[in-house]
Order: sequence, then structure tokens, then C-alpha cells
Amino acid sequence: MASSLIECVANFSEGREAAVVAAIERAIRSAAGGVSVLRSEMDSDHNRSVITFVGPPDAVAAGALRAIETAVERIDLRKHAGVHPRMGAADVVPFVPLEGATLDDCVAIARQTGEEVWKRLGVPVYFYEAAAKSPDRRLLENCRRGGFEDPRLAPDVGGPALHPSAGACIIGARKILIAFNVNLKTDDVQVARDIARKIRASSGGMPFVKALGLPLADRGLAQVSMNLTDFEQTPLHVVFDAVKREAAARGVEIAGSEIIGLIPKKALEDAAAHYLQCENFESGLVLENRLAES
Amino acid sequence: MASSLIECVANFSEGREAAVVAAIERAIRSAAGGVSVLRSEMDSDHNRSVITFVGPPDAVAAGALRAIETAVERIDLRKHAGVHPRMGAADVVPFVPLEGATLDDCVAIARQTGEEVWKRLGVPVYFYEAAAKSPDRRLLENCRRGGFEDPRLAPDVGGPALHPSAGACIIGARKILIAFNVNLKTDDVQVARDIARKIRASSGGMPFVKALGLPLADRGLAQVSMNLTDFEQTPLHVVFDAVKREAAARGVEIAGSEIIGLIPKKALEDAAAHYLQCENFESGLVLENRLAES
Repeated sequence: MASSLIECVANFSEGREAAVVAAIERAIRSAAGGVSVLRSEMDSDHNRSVITFVGPPDAVAAGALRAIETAVERIDLRKHAGVHPRMGAADVVPFVPLEGATLDDCVAIARQTGEEVWKRLGVPVYFYEAAAKSPDRRLLENCRRGGFEDPRLAPDVGGPALHPSAGACIIGARKILIAFNVNLKTDDVQVARDIARKIRASSGGMPFVKALGLPLADRGLAQVSMNLTDFEQTPLHVVFDAVKREAAARGVEIAGSEIIGLIPKKALEDAAAHYLQCENFESGLVLENRLAES
Repeated sequence: MASSLIECVANFSEGREAAVVAAIERAIRSAAGGVSVLRSEMDSDHNRSVITFVGPPDAVAAGALRAIETAVERIDLRKHAGVHPRMGAADVVPFVPLEGATLDDCVAIARQTGEEVWKRLGVPVYFYEAAAKSPDRRLLENCRRGGFEDPRLAPDVGGPALHPSAGACIIGARKILIAFNVNLKTDDVQVARDIARKIRASSGGMPFVKALGLPLADRGLAQVSMNLTDFEQTPLHVVFDAVKREAAARGVEIAGSEIIGLIPKKALEDAAAHYLQCENFESGLVLENRLAES
């Protein structure tokens, strides 16, 4: 395993033309230095795709730049329609630290990539989350409000006018995110909404937890759909137990849970150690971890 | 990560002279083909050491042979005393399949290593567990009864006389073993013994579970000390829940648990998925697993 690894979870405003997404993937894979594409998902309702790739910092930065370049060439937002909010052809590009990398490393890569995107492609850039240049730009939603009409909403690099066909690009750095849903044995979506409100950070619940209550109409269940933005501060098992406890308080059982996308092994190790009440757990007790170190 | 990995958990009858154990470790590391020593433990009461090493099959076989050779040269059982039963300088040498290897691969390595040990070192060999040549030799304890007085107890290779200073060597193949203890909030060791009897395979409990009740005098607790010999058949979390349930039935709480040695990641992934009630869990959802495959 390389000594330092970065992940990039790039979102593009194309979820219908498979050839375009394939071209972006090829561009990523063509980056020198060894980039692995771990996942590639297309959603035609959202008209959006998400490509997750991993590698050493320089290789991931090069892959991201090539991906953005291809998206700018192939995607014309003037012809684009979809239910998801979007601002650019290469819409949102966060860099995430994995083994041996820090959030600061990812901020540096995000900033450098942003400069290149404006200089080489003429696409203005907003920086968000840890890469934001001001506190009010940390939230992705706030960057989406940007535009050239209001100078306070101007891009961080380039502009103020957006690129005619490719809009702007929102580039950032963040910790790894866990998308985790808990399904409730009830068709009453209000129960899921109440639990979501109780546990999420924005309503005074647990820090680093975003949550929504949704209906799962096809299964006759309600779902608490969550993003955990810092599982080391607010662990997966703590969130699961909180949902279970809140559901029980409302007389509702858990039907099951789902992990969306990929989950870091540490979140599972921590959950196992918690439930097994393991007194001496540390990552080096795991055979495969010991092997990777040796 | 290599395409096929084997583990060897070699037990030597020397737990007091660090220089001897260090010489055995050096012999292992000198094997061609890349062997990693993951753990090395010495126990002076038992006068015994355990060295765990991993690598591609040929390299691990070569490392094991060199280790046995060094132990035969450096350890004289005629001068040996300790509380642990032992039969040889290189006492017990099991091979364990890890990624990409099967138990049959390990049987082949065990048999070949046994032939070499007799041919090159003049030390007779017993084969145990999956490498046993007859069902009554599968249990390690049965091999320990061996000796040259009774031809029915003769070694599988070489002999019938044991090596004058190095005795015999018991070589085998087995699945990976999880050593796991659960500590009970009681100083009544009988509770731990009752639970051990209830859950272990030998008294009609769960298959692939060995268990003993022990006092933890220094902490004023009782302990259910277990070996899980096939965690894929009888998972770690199933065993933990059974101990917890049996303890609760006796009005006793769990103080905590301990993992002894190393644990395969799959046992923890399975436990986490179980407790989190994850409907869609599979190993490929773990970021690091996906990376290793890519």
C-alpha cells in the first residue's frame, strides 16, 4: 500500500449519456502515477454521476484535473435538466484524506487544482468545506448560491462570469463521509422525520450527523437517511444506537440498515469492538492491518 | 498484497533465553521470498515462545524449516523445564491459510515440511489437525501422547526413536483460530465454568468452540476463555452473544472481552454488520478492501 493516499469523489452533471461518463473515467485512469477508480455511479433522474477514485496525492490531483477538463469539453449545462441542484459540468470535486494523508494535504491539492481549472479551462472555482477561503463558503449549499450578479457571491478563483457551457466548479477538501440509512418497521414517515430531527447536528443533536426522514414506499417502511461527516468524532455505532433508542421510545423496531457507497474499515472495527465490549482493541490486533504495516 | 498468503504459528520450547528466540526469528526472516514476522511472544512460566509469520507459501515453508533447524540446534529438551506440555524443541508448527490459500494447500506444505524435518534434521514428525494421517491424530493432545515405547504411538515420519535433544515435531494445518476471552462481573469461577460447559462443542454446545472457565484473581473476576476454531461456521459475535445470554441467565453482567493474538478482519466485519443490522453488507463495501482489489 502506498505511503499516502487521497480519495476524490467527483460529481458530474451527466447521468444519462454513458459515453460521456466513460470518457471522464478514461481521463481519470490516464493520469500518471497510479489512480484506481473504485466506483462509478450514474443516476438518470438526477442526471448526475459520481466517480470515486483513489491514489497518491499527485496522481489524484492529475486525475481530477483531466476529469474536469473532459467534463468541460463534453457537458453543456445549457442543454442539461435534472432534479439535482448543480452549478457546473464538473459540479463538486472534494478531496478526502485516506491513509497517511491529512485534511491539510487535501486543502492544498484542492486549492492548486482550483487554480489550474481557472487558468487552463477558464472555469471559475468556488472552494468549500475545509478548502473554503471564508467561513460562509464552508457549506456546499452556500457556494451553490453563487453567481456573477452579486459580487459577494463571486467565485474564489476567476470569473466573475461563469463559463458559458460549463458553469463553475466547486472544489473542496473534507473528511471521509459515511452515508448510512436505518430503515424503520413503520410506514409512518413522520416517525423517521422526528428521529432525524432529534439526532442531527442542525437541530441540536449529535455533531457531524446530517439526517432526513424519508418514505420507502416500495417496502412500506420509513427511513432515517444519514450522512456522518466525521465518524471518528461521532461513531457509526453511536448513531445507530441513538436511532434504535429513539425508535424504541416511539414503539418502532429497526428493520435493518444500509451502507451507501464505501465505508472505511475503522468505522467497522470501532463498531465491532464496541458491541463485543472489547477492552484491548486496537487496530494492530487485526491480522490484515498488521500485515499491511509489516 | 500477494495473491496467496500462508500463516505459520510456530511454538518453540524456549521462553527464557531471548537470544535463542531471536536466533529463530532471524532464521525465519532469512527465508527467501518475503516472510513477515507479525508477532513474537515469550512466556517464561511456560518456558515457551510463539512466533507468527506470514508470506507466500514457498517462503513460509522455507522459513518454518529454518526455524525448526535453529530450534533443534539451540534447544536441548533434556535441560528444559516448564509448566506447558511439550514434545519437541520445535514443538508445534501449524500452517494456516490466509488470502487466496486453502486448507489443502496448507496440508501439502505441512506434509512436505515434515518429510524435510526428518530427512535433514533427523527429528521425527507427527501430523495433526487437517494434516493428520489418521483420524485419531487430528487432536494435538493425541499426538502429544506419542512415544517410541508403543508402536501405535509411533511418529508419522521417521523414528520410532525421538531425537535425543530435540524430541519430535508436531506439524499441522488448520484454519485460523481466534482466541477470545469474556470477563464476567463475578468472582465466582463456577459461573464461568458453567457457561464454558454450556457453550463448548465438547459438551454439546456450539461447534468449533473450545471454552474453559478461569479465575482472574487479580481483577476479582471470572473469565470464559475461548478458542474459536472456525469463526466462519460459528461467528465471534454469536459466541459473544451466547456468553452474554448465559451470564444474564445467571444474573451476571459482562465486564468486557479480550482478543488474544491477532484476529482476521472478516470476523470484525461480520460482527459489525450483525450488530448494525446491515442488510447490504459485503466485504467490497469496505474502502480498504476495494482498494486492495483494485
